[in-house]
Amino acid sequence: MGSVLLETAPLQANLSIEPTDDVSLSADERYELITRRLQEVLNGDLIKAILAEGKHPKGYWGTAPTGRPHIGYFVPLTKISDFLRAGIEMTVLVADIHAFLDNMKAPLELVSHRTKYYEFLIRAILESLGIPTDKLRFVTGSSYQLSKEYNLDNYRLCASVSEHDAKKAGAEVVKQVESPLLSGLLYPGLQALDEQYLGCDFQFGGIDQRKIFTFAELYLPRLGYAKRAHLMNKMVPGLSGGKMSASDPNSKIDLLDPPEIVKKKIKSAFCEEGNVEDNGVLAFVGAVLMPISSLRKERIETATTAGTSTDDLAKPFTTESAPPSATFSIHRDEKWGGDLHYSTFEEIETDFKEKKLHPGDLKIAVTQAINSLLAPIRKKFDESEEWKAIEKLAYPPPVSETQKKKKKEKVYHPPPPGKGKNQAAGNHSELEAPKQEKPSSSS
Amino acid sequence: MGSVLLETAPLQANLSIEPTDDVSLSADERYELITRRLQEVLNGDLIKAILAEGKHPKGYWGTAPTGRPHIGYFVPLTKISDFLRAGIEMTVLVADIHAFLDNMKAPLELVSHRTKYYEFLIRAILESLGIPTDKLRFVTGSSYQLSKEYNLDNYRLCASVSEHDAKKAGAEVVKQVESPLLSGLLYPGLQALDEQYLGCDFQFGGIDQRKIFTFAELYLPRLGYAKRAHLMNKMVPGLSGGKMSASDPNSKIDLLDPPEIVKKKIKSAFCEEGNVEDNGVLAFVGAVLMPISSLRKERIETATTAGTSTDDLAKPFTTESAPPSATFSIHRDEKWGGDLHYSTFEEIETDFKEKKLHPGDLKIAVTQAINSLLAPIRKKFDESEEWKAIEKLAYPPPVSETQKKKKKEKVYHPPPPGKGKNQAAGNHSELEAPKQEKPSSSS
Repeated sequence: MGSVLLETAPLQANLSIEPTDDVSLSADERYELITRRLQEVLNGDLIKAILAEGKHPKGYWGTAPTGRPHIGYFVPLTKISDFLRAGIEMTVLVADIHAFLDNMKAPLELVSHRTKYYEFLIRAILESLGIPTDKLRFVTGSSYQLSKEYNLDNYRLCASVSEHDAKKAGAEVVKQVESPLLSGLLYPGLQALDEQYLGCDFQFGGIDQRKIFTFAELYLPRLGYAKRAHLMNKMVPGLSGGKMSASDPNSKIDLLDPPEIVKKKIKSAFCEEGNVEDNGVLAFVGAVLMPISSLRKERIETATTAGTSTDDLAKPFTTESAPPSATFSIHRDEKWGGDLHYSTFEEIETDFKEKKLHPGDLKIAVTQAINSLLAPIRKKFDESEEWKAIEKLAYPPPVSETQKKKKKEKVYHPPPPGKGKNQAAGNHSELEAPKQEKPSSSS
Repeated sequence: MGSVLLETAPLQANLSIEPTDDVSLSADERYELITRRLQEVLNGDLIKAILAEGKHPKGYWGTAPTGRPHIGYFVPLTKISDFLRAGIEMTVLVADIHAFLDNMKAPLELVSHRTKYYEFLIRAILESLGIPTDKLRFVTGSSYQLSKEYNLDNYRLCASVSEHDAKKAGAEVVKQVESPLLSGLLYPGLQALDEQYLGCDFQFGGIDQRKIFTFAELYLPRLGYAKRAHLMNKMVPGLSGGKMSASDPNSKIDLLDPPEIVKKKIKSAFCEEGNVEDNGVLAFVGAVLMPISSLRKERIETATTAGTSTDDLAKPFTTESAPPSATFSIHRDEKWGGDLHYSTFEEIETDFKEKKLHPGDLKIAVTQAINSLLAPIRKKFDESEEWKAIEKLAYPPPVSETQKKKKKEKVYHPPPPGKGKNQAAGNHSELEAPKQEKPSSSS
């Protein structure tokens, strides 16, 4: 297609990065790496076929730069680190137009600063995991979603899709409010077109995107475009706990939060003894901490085998007493039974369900692990004048209503961004699709 | 706005044209000319204010180049001739993208030929009425409806408009079918944006556009754009008769039909004795023939007063025995009561209702008048090699399905255009907005 893609310049890599696209990996091993821990894969054969030819499949994941990215972003990014290690050419769509439409009070200029902030952060996260981001491409929606070709395709799609199918496709992602907006019906189609215009072989998202994904599989071929594969992550409840504190803006952990704030927020997180269903703290261990700990272990093993130093390598989330098979440890005083070691998430879940693992002990371990994850990101932020400047522009301090009114009589773009629904959004960690009219917390 | 408008080159004026934007007309007289015979005017004060300043208001009328324009086009064009005489700077939007979306089987290239054919025809009609078209601008939808600015505005609008309001706005124009298409919800918004992008002060259409017009009045200001005036024509039933023969492709009079075909078609038109409600033949007299006859009378009077020759001027639709006040005559043999003369449409309606005027006599008079209207258009067509070439491209002779299949196995754009729903469309004379999934005849 004739769309013009504006790639934003990659960040300077300040951390030492080892290339992890291991050329020794077989096609089967790559496919296993790409699809592990996913809840569902549609048209996986398409990816297998590309791998069998020794080529790099192209993937795409979209995120709308609305509020401030929080710790939930580790969930898709941990999976994306698998993709990158398996040699996927990955595109991150920063859906600036969707973000703008989601809350038109924030002007496009502010959204463009946030778009840059998102890229800084996403690269910093992946680099902190030791994942090279040279096969990661950032594309802003506005670089092609306003083009002539894209819009004609959008019109063509709208002249093929029934209202009913569009509504059904967005049912999980677009909040069903009393008076739904027309844009909610457009989003599924636009997301389908993005697959074509970003030239991907698969789209990745949370399982809440399933209907949007099957919609794309049905309708893209009707426009003469290829059907893509779809890879879906499990939904992970927010760290703050699904139902309890979505309306409490203090409960979300910002990726730049200092250790004491992280500790405080996790301490107040919902993590009920024996409850493994609605437990964001526990889920975060399975979706993020254990995979990252495994990755760290593998690196140390590789270095040890090669006889090189392991001093600079990040440590797995295990204690010194852990057996070699363990990937996650909970430190406990001897009087409470001593350390607990786990090699699979199922073991942790079982212990928690049977109340052998106490929420207080889990929270301490998770706090330490998260702080070890955030430390290099904070460091990178502190060292980058450019990033710090962008942060100020992207999230300016709220101006009080009185102050504002004194200065100007007519203000069409109220400045305090990140307030209201955007602040409350993102309680679940797979919230890539644009939402509209998000009501408080009723999911 | 930053939209780029591609104006297509005006046709060579082969007919002698007198400028009818009479500078001696007062603002009040112009307003009267602009609004006479309309069923409804919204925000007329806006037009009055522009006229009061001695300026030329800008108007817009849209038509989608789907099928072949038929004689029903005389209805809006007769009104547009009033606008032009009153000094309106008139834009005709040839909505090529809408036409393409309406029936995606016809490729865009074919639509572009039809767009040119429409312009030839519309100019020829107005010129045959002696109306100068130098203040008439033709704009194709594709020249700006795919632009970045327009599409961002479309997205902004969709993020402001509820599904409910969009559906309500299109209820009269977009056919309510079992499984309505998403495009039907977009059209009202696009038509509203057209007002802004065409830079008009008012939009003109049939009264069936009322909900779309009030939708535009409500939503354009929410995007920061001005509310426009809206001028609405009465709906005129098709010449073929509303209910009886919409499915009969032979019942519509093409603007290039020769006299004997016109005669045949009017002869078979639905025109029930005493029925003035569903009577396209009668309605055509009121909406087209009497206004044109009046115009011709005025011209002859002006020439006579000025002492210039009236030989080249077209004659009004009256017989020689008509009194000076008459604008329409029905010729009848003395044995049936002799000629009938009317100065207002109400008089004809009354006579027809009271069965003093027989359908057969009415049909003969209408046939003669229509043939006198079409003669200069046919002449212009016959004399223009360019127009004839465009006609061949725009409406290529149908290729039989057997022929087609023999040549190529995979054909995505079946060539016989103007068949099926497009052929059946346009039964009413104010069908400017795109229709979708037009069912047979159930209105």
